[in-house]
Amino acid sequence: MAENKIPRATAKRLPIYYRYLNILHDSGKLRVSSNELADAIHVDSATIRRDFSYFGALGKRGYGYDVNDLIEFFKNILHQDRLTNVALIGVGNLGHALLNFNFHQDSNIRISAAFDTNPKNINTIQGGVPIYPMDKMVTQLKEQQISVVILTVPSNVAQKVASQVSEAGVSGVLNFTSIRLSLPDDIRVHNVDLTNELQTLIYFIEHYDKKSE
Amino acid sequence: MAENKIPRATAKRLPIYYRYLNILHDSGKLRVSSNELADAIHVDSATIRRDFSYFGALGKRGYGYDVNDLIEFFKNILHQDRLTNVALIGVGNLGHALLNFNFHQDSNIRISAAFDTNPKNINTIQGGVPIYPMDKMVTQLKEQQISVVILTVPSNVAQKVASQVSEAGVSGVLNFTSIRLSLPDDIRVHNVDLTNELQTLIYFIEHYDKKSE
Repeated sequence: MAENKIPRATAKRLPIYYRYLNILHDSGKLRVSSNELADAIHVDSATIRRDFSYFGALGKRGYGYDVNDLIEFFKNILHQDRLTNVALIGVGNLGHALLNFNFHQDSNIRISAAFDTNPKNINTIQGGVPIYPMDKMVTQLKEQQISVVILTVPSNVAQKVASQVSEAGVSGVLNFTSIRLSLPDDIRVHNVDLTNELQTLIYFIEHYDKKSE
Repeated sequence: MAENKIPRATAKRLPIYYRYLNILHDSGKLRVSSNELADAIHVDSATIRRDFSYFGALGKRGYGYDVNDLIEFFKNILHQDRLTNVALIGVGNLGHALLNFNFHQDSNIRISAAFDTNPKNINTIQGGVPIYPMDKMVTQLKEQQISVVILTVPSNVAQKVASQVSEAGVSGVLNFTSIRLSLPDDIRVHNVDLTNELQTLIYFIEHYDKKSE
């Protein structure tokens, strides 16, 4: 498939495109130009046209892009036509915030289970999500066919918990800990390191002139 | 300066390098090879050597890199030799979690003020950070010479608050809301969109074979 070859930077913009196209759709818009999209999402229009071109000629010169066609296209590409079961592991401050986080309404992401060691949390429901004890984790991940986990445990147990998760058939880990996890190659790990985000922002402020994503 | 031309992907890895070099230093290590670094942080060694080469020939073949030299170098590049004053705006669940978040001990980042509308939060201290009412925001940002703000307000007020922030001399915004902010070109905005992070992870699981950052 052609989409196997798209640059990572393009892949990371796909959810942004998808979300704004849904907003346009809800406001009754039938077509959109790359310039209009560029203004709305603060990505320059040449980048948008190049991104879209990886998926074939989706637009027509002088007409722009058909909003519904694009939505259907991205919905499929992003697997938004299927529900992805997500679990959260570690209900501290950050885990608690993510359980109550309002993931975009147009996304197909639902956290369906959480796991924690704290007796005050176990067997409660937070943000609509049941919290199980850690010793039920592997069983529940398998039974609920969970493919993605959000890891918000303390750093000192991150590798141990991640290794257990890898035995439960999970395909991806969104890692909020500061540890770089060692996991089998068939498990994809994305790191969201908040200290790094701040340090990188400060680096860019000091070393680059123009703002951007 | 040569460093003005380094790729963004390289810039984003600098804080990771810096952090692991400090860990090596604390364990008494004086030199390190790109292969050792590669194993520790899960970035391939060719990428590490290329990243480092943007800053001149820092290593010697057969010897590796001098840990202290690298630390001093990255400390300067990342402005870790100066304290950056950071404020957080919006103390909901996510804001609360970030106030109590353990930013790496080797970082120079301190949240020194927070702002909120909720009377229960105003004039309290959370995670060691005083919380001020919103109508004190512009004054406090200026008085405390805050250069970076973390935006964790509800999406429906994000643009309004960001516009006020831009009047207070702030250089950068770490935006956790789902809104793409419109701000003057001299203010740098980095977006941390947690729905996008999850959607992108799912996209990569479905469309790519190997794991990676």
